[in-house]
Amino acid sequence: MSEPQFERLALIGIGLIGSSIARVARERNLAREIVVSTRSAETLARAEELDLGDRYCLDAGEAVEGADLVVLCVPVGANGAVAKWIAPSLSPGAILTDVGSTKKSVVDQVRPHVPNGVHFIPGHPIAGTEQSGPDAGFATLFDNRWCILTPEQGVDAAATEKLSAFWRGCGSNVDLMDADHHDLVLAIVSHLPHLIAYNIVGTADDLATVTKSEVIKYSASGFRDFTRLAASDPTMWRDVCLNNKDAILEMLSRFSEDLSAMQRAIRWGDGDALFDLFTRTRGIRRSIIEAGQETDAPDFGRVQSKTDD
Amino acid sequence: MSEPQFERLALIGIGLIGSSIARVARERNLAREIVVSTRSAETLARAEELDLGDRYCLDAGEAVEGADLVVLCVPVGANGAVAKWIAPSLSPGAILTDVGSTKKSVVDQVRPHVPNGVHFIPGHPIAGTEQSGPDAGFATLFDNRWCILTPEQGVDAAATEKLSAFWRGCGSNVDLMDADHHDLVLAIVSHLPHLIAYNIVGTADDLATVTKSEVIKYSASGFRDFTRLAASDPTMWRDVCLNNKDAILEMLSRFSEDLSAMQRAIRWGDGDALFDLFTRTRGIRRSIIEAGQETDAPDFGRVQSKTDD
Repeated sequence: MSEPQFERLALIGIGLIGSSIARVARERNLAREIVVSTRSAETLARAEELDLGDRYCLDAGEAVEGADLVVLCVPVGANGAVAKWIAPSLSPGAILTDVGSTKKSVVDQVRPHVPNGVHFIPGHPIAGTEQSGPDAGFATLFDNRWCILTPEQGVDAAATEKLSAFWRGCGSNVDLMDADHHDLVLAIVSHLPHLIAYNIVGTADDLATVTKSEVIKYSASGFRDFTRLAASDPTMWRDVCLNNKDAILEMLSRFSEDLSAMQRAIRWGDGDALFDLFTRTRGIRRSIIEAGQETDAPDFGRVQSKTDD
Repeated sequence: MSEPQFERLALIGIGLIGSSIARVARERNLAREIVVSTRSAETLARAEELDLGDRYCLDAGEAVEGADLVVLCVPVGANGAVAKWIAPSLSPGAILTDVGSTKKSVVDQVRPHVPNGVHFIPGHPIAGTEQSGPDAGFATLFDNRWCILTPEQGVDAAATEKLSAFWRGCGSNVDLMDADHHDLVLAIVSHLPHLIAYNIVGTADDLATVTKSEVIKYSASGFRDFTRLAASDPTMWRDVCLNNKDAILEMLSRFSEDLSAMQRAIRWGDGDALFDLFTRTRGIRRSIIEAGQETDAPDFGRVQSKTDD
């Protein structure tokens, strides 16, 4: 195994993403030492039981001392407070990054606290499941996924390359773009899908004419697909909404306009318009499968549950 | 193996559902003879290559002669024409059913053509994948899924029970309800999810500021889940929209109202309202998993593709 790229990796937050980084870093020898920090004593104890790191600190400031790579793995709304906390303890030359689903607001929160000599390079690994917490992570989460870095103008190119190499070591492909464009792209590929999923599950939950038992029994006809995204971490998604407001509102408006047009086509019985829409959407799935970002097994390759009910 | 329940099963249409019925009926000996009919010579030849039946007819009328169970497995808009075609050839005492995703419109189309002495019992197996055609079917498709029958008033109870036993033989649980209620329930659990999925994929496809390549590369962050439903058969879904208009428009309205409320919460930064919605939706997924209608594996148990791109 080659020498690790970093001497000391500090993970602030040890949920799905943080614990997956810990696992892959350990497994592929990406850092000589892993320090885990989280504000909940209970979660920290669980991380230790899972043997996710070499040292465990409730104090995030203590955790980042001497670290040459610090990764903030907290809900996007918490990055400012954490940055302020750890700033005095960051080592000169350290790389500071994050994994948040929005980038501009993270820059706005963190940037003011970053000491001179520390390389701040925001990041976002495009990977996850609907589960959360330190038990939910796994070492292959980032394999063949993309990680987006949004280095600001003037950031040290060597530091950006070193962080990119770390993510490649985690199994990811790496793309660079600016924070504003990231937020727009993610609004359509991730934020809107989650919000739509939460919304439709809420709509179904509110119905008086259809019982909850019916929704559950017949969910294999389509509904259940949406419940996966709608089971994601509420704190994380509240923060995403509050921190990428403009791009999300823009995408919601476009989606609603398109939905109104579809509604009109249904009301007026315009079968050709419906058929055209339902046809052109097929190609996108094929492209996603060909790009290695989706399984080609029918029904996601779901294993049918054999439970009787 | 016990004696088959039916002497001759005629399947009119041999796509995903028809071919799955053929496979399970053969495998579990649910009918002594299986006759396959479809209007496309090419599809019929493929069905024969796949050995899905005992006899193959382009003429649906010929196919139903002497059959004691006839299952219409065509897009919902085609049921009226097929019923008219086969009516003169139906045997007295035969059970005539269908598998359409809407029920009231199928009743309206088929009912006028049903001869006296034929038991017409509309049906809808709540099962499927995003794939279509005779190759897409498989014998376990109906296992532990639900099949809804909507017998009209005055239909022979013994015939309903015999058809229910057939579906149980296919692996399904059977529920009875009236056609109107079926259409309302399916509008929320199936039709709305498919339309929302088609719509969001269309919205993404139209964007000028985000490239298609970006949508594809980063789709694992949520978007790809929707592309599965949006890859479903366009003809089938056009027909569903045209044939369950009222219930679908009702559900679309409710969904849009809820979406507007969410949009407003985002615009005004109402984190508590968002958090509440994002929390209550988690329980529904848990219930669906407990009811045996969904896998509890993270990410649907997707097998990560290892393709490089």
